[in-house]
Amino acid sequence: MSLSLNEIVARLGGELVGATVGAAVGEKVGVGDTAAVATATMGTTGQADGTAITDIRITHVAPLETADSGDLSFLSNPKYRAQMQRTRASAVIMSPAAFHSLAQLNSAMPFAAILTDQPYLYYARVAQWLSPLPDVIPGIHASAVVVGQVADSAEIGAHVSIGCGAQIGADVAIGANCSIGENVVIADGSRLAPNVTVYAHCVIGKRCIIHAGVVIGSDGFGFAREATGAWVKIPQIGRVVIGDEVEIGANTTIDRGALDDTIIGDGVKLDNQIQIGHNVKIGKDTAIAGCVGVAGSAVIGARCSIGGAAMIQGHLTLADEVVVTTGTLVTKSITKAGTYSGSSPFLTHGEWLRNFSHLRHLDAMADKIRALEQRLQAMEKKA
Amino acid sequence: MSLSLNEIVARLGGELVGATVGAAVGEKVGVGDTAAVATATMGTTGQADGTAITDIRITHVAPLETADSGDLSFLSNPKYRAQMQRTRASAVIMSPAAFHSLAQLNSAMPFAAILTDQPYLYYARVAQWLSPLPDVIPGIHASAVVVGQVADSAEIGAHVSIGCGAQIGADVAIGANCSIGENVVIADGSRLAPNVTVYAHCVIGKRCIIHAGVVIGSDGFGFAREATGAWVKIPQIGRVVIGDEVEIGANTTIDRGALDDTIIGDGVKLDNQIQIGHNVKIGKDTAIAGCVGVAGSAVIGARCSIGGAAMIQGHLTLADEVVVTTGTLVTKSITKAGTYSGSSPFLTHGEWLRNFSHLRHLDAMADKIRALEQRLQAMEKKA
Amino acid sequence: MSLSLNEIVARLGGELVGATVGAAVGEKVGVGDTAAVATATMGTTGQADGTAITDIRITHVAPLETADSGDLSFLSNPKYRAQMQRTRASAVIMSPAAFHSLAQLNSAMPFAAILTDQPYLYYARVAQWLSPLPDVIPGIHASAVVVGQVADSAEIGAHVSIGCGAQIGADVAIGANCSIGENVVIADGSRLAPNVTVYAHCVIGKRCIIHAGVVIGSDGFGFAREATGAWVKIPQIGRVVIGDEVEIGANTTIDRGALDDTIIGDGVKLDNQIQIGHNVKIGKDTAIAGCVGVAGSAVIGARCSIGGAAMIQGHLTLADEVVVTTGTLVTKSITKAGTYSGSSPFLTHGEWLRNFSHLRHLDAMADKIRALEQRLQAMEKKA
Repeated sequence: MSLSLNEIVARLGGELVGATVGAAVGEKVGVGDTAAVATATMGTTGQADGTAITDIRITHVAPLETADSGDLSFLSNPKYRAQMQRTRASAVIMSPAAFHSLAQLNSAMPFAAILTDQPYLYYARVAQWLSPLPDVIPGIHASAVVVGQVADSAEIGAHVSIGCGAQIGADVAIGANCSIGENVVIADGSRLAPNVTVYAHCVIGKRCIIHAGVVIGSDGFGFAREATGAWVKIPQIGRVVIGDEVEIGANTTIDRGALDDTIIGDGVKLDNQIQIGHNVKIGKDTAIAGCVGVAGSAVIGARCSIGGAAMIQGHLTLADEVVVTTGTLVTKSITKAGTYSGSSPFLTHGEWLRNFSHLRHLDAMADKIRALEQRLQAMEKKA
Repeated sequence: MSLSLNEIVARLGGELVGATVGAAVGEKVGVGDTAAVATATMGTTGQADGTAITDIRITHVAPLETADSGDLSFLSNPKYRAQMQRTRASAVIMSPAAFHSLAQLNSAMPFAAILTDQPYLYYARVAQWLSPLPDVIPGIHASAVVVGQVADSAEIGAHVSIGCGAQIGADVAIGANCSIGENVVIADGSRLAPNVTVYAHCVIGKRCIIHAGVVIGSDGFGFAREATGAWVKIPQIGRVVIGDEVEIGANTTIDRGALDDTIIGDGVKLDNQIQIGHNVKIGKDTAIAGCVGVAGSAVIGARCSIGGAAMIQGHLTLADEVVVTTGTLVTKSITKAGTYSGSSPFLTHGEWLRNFSHLRHLDAMADKIRALEQRLQAMEKKA
Repeated sequence: MSLSLNEIVARLGGELVGATVGAAVGEKVGVGDTAAVATATMGTTGQADGTAITDIRITHVAPLETADSGDLSFLSNPKYRAQMQRTRASAVIMSPAAFHSLAQLNSAMPFAAILTDQPYLYYARVAQWLSPLPDVIPGIHASAVVVGQVADSAEIGAHVSIGCGAQIGADVAIGANCSIGENVVIADGSRLAPNVTVYAHCVIGKRCIIHAGVVIGSDGFGFAREATGAWVKIPQIGRVVIGDEVEIGANTTIDRGALDDTIIGDGVKLDNQIQIGHNVKIGKDTAIAGCVGVAGSAVIGARCSIGGAAMIQGHLTLADEVVVTTGTLVTKSITKAGTYSGSSPFLTHGEWLRNFSHLRHLDAMADKIRALEQRLQAMEKKA
């Protein structure tokens, strides 16, 4: 697929500008205003052929460093500005502020620019346009074992099992070797990669993306203890209910509720190898990075960001818009939006030995300071 | 399924009491002693119809907060006592002590109660009775590829593979897409969810529950190093041997022994996404929460509890009845029962920056305190 | 299979020595020099039958403690030296230094010894010889769904799917229920255990071992954020490219690159349940233990060792030969080879409460020390 810069700004907005010898730096090109467009002189990109900026064709998105002619790149982080000098991209998405500060440094930039306040978001939209999800090819593979109901437009892969009472919506794609339990509901447009397991009665919303190896609806970790120390299983009879537009990374596991349901809100994004315990509720548009564990009955608000390998203990509540940084263990409820941290710094092994050994003696250290204060005060009084 | 309170106490014990206007608070109802039973007046539960307490029928278990008429709930943690005032449960399991302290606060409670010293354990038993595991439907799915021996009463799901020499016991259920290696033994009554892999020669005991995505018997991480830095694989020729009544959570992995076996004792409960290294031994009735890693050749005693995301280093020993709290890294053997911790607290990001930066300088801080002590002592001597 | 000690040293080198009554301790036996060999008198091993040392036959490798007659064991760690007195092994691999120090302590050792500077590496080679990987049985199982190209010598298991354009090399073995995406390349001699998922376009080198439940090529965790807080997916269009002789542990996940590729170098060894983010590069012969997370765009050098449950943040670089110890969070680039640590010690729960609570007040503690220094200095000046 190839798109002209004109098509891109026509659909996605932004200002298209050329940075050329012969054209005013930052000269604005209105959508549909091709006649007035400055001619791009793109010395290093191989398009110094007088093509109007609006007609430049984009076939791929690429990072500044590796972009080549025909590529659209983006500048969203000022620390990559040095790469702008060398990029071979045909066009770069950036903020107006970045463009004007660059324009003052260079007499000419070897690319066209699309100016927008949110370059990374704009880039995401172009990238989705150029690399759409693969088509869903309607049909049920001959090797699949389907008892439930499947929409005509759905694609069911090889060696899939779909249990009794399950409902698979329109345009759903289910990859090879998935196992879909009894009475599971998968709503329109959702896609499951291969080797996903969905236990009975769970519900997956619309346009979700579930990656390979994900397990949805396994039993929560609930046991009562006998006097002997033996464990008696608590039946886990709740469900997992997943909203719309949720993405779940590879090998992530989400336990069904013990009695109530485990609930994953609309727009939630879960990275790989996350463990979500039973009865957890996660609010809309919260994003959780890889290797995080969320223990049973934790309630996480909307629009939270949980960093990688953070651990959220059970039976606590996180407010909306809480940010937990990488490797932090959250042991009590957080009632206020904001950023929270608890990880330890790393050192060379020798420095670590010298410094971290004192962690075993912080209380004695505090005692020594208190004693010093008292002795000093006594002396000061005397003096 | 529905059970009368009388049936429940007849099988599981406990004292059935009514808390009603018109009946003495805490009046004891013997099993089979229905004639003498106080009439329950359950205003808020919709059963204020004069039904004898023993005849009240229970169809579900439910938490105090969401329970409705026909539900049996439980009070095991005093912090949920406030919910007792509002619950719509038909009956609540609680300790005699909790009942009597509640009775003094309220002239009447809107539910019947079953009194037992271990309410949560009692609740687990009722829940198992009301929600038994699904029936095993004997038979081998036509799509399964079975070379080993399978008991007539076992259920083998779609697209399962069972290797040469494997023995699948009576009443075993194996979910879709499981792969069972050569000479694997799975004893009577065990259940494997879909997408489980059991490598060759491993042994699974009786009445185990293995959740989806579990891998049993993968190679341990054993390599010798050449002078060049290249790694030479140590063949992993031990097995994994799993006892009876073991439950293993989704996507947990257990490596086979290098030479000896990896051994998981009877009654062990493993949550999701746990990694057990080669040659590990875990004692009877130990429970391990999600995201824990146990490195190679660690030996964990009986009746231990390991909190989520804890990490147990290799080649060490934990005594029986050791409790390791969430997020703790165990770096040496623990020879005495008790609770052990090592996780860092979390703070607002600003406080964390201010406080945790000192971790790099604890040794200098200790030096400063020592210097202060010496200077102060010198002054005290002089004075 | 059984090997004589003579066959072993003939192929793998080392010095074969007997430690017997009647033979000089440490007497060297040259390869092929059987005539001159001391007669072994192996009282405890059941081979005290006058067999020449070179003819002793080895059928298994085993640890010193559990070895029996016919077993070859090894001593690579001096702390296991006490076990030498009791071992029933027919022969033990050890360093010349260990042998001579043992020889001085004992008038006779009840085993033959192979002397080599790297006993563990030698042991690995013998173990590989005695326990080779199972034969690859050429052929495609009738239940497999194969669209791509498969070499005649490859073995494709039951219920495998292989997508359009995929190329499966010579002597490749693919376990049951694996799903191989479109255009995937798996080079000669690689082996995939059951339930592995390889997404489209990924490349696996020669002689790799991929364990069960591994996911290769899932989407990286890349989203741009709208003003509302909603996330817009960044298409992940790079690949995963894996070198030769790579081993990947059970349920490990490796995300495909966003635009560039994720690259795993030759000889890299990854343990179980590791998460590798998009665009990560890992250098040759680096080994990573279980439960590690490597966030997106991290670059890890060659011959690094990353301890279990360590976490490497994104967009940073680790030099060659960096060692990160267990449980360490790496938050910035490491430019120099060496060992780095950052984990917290563990304590009894009571000691932990007393000591770790001060972590919230380290800054105040530093302030108190500074104030003490100033007050003391003021007093010292006065005095």
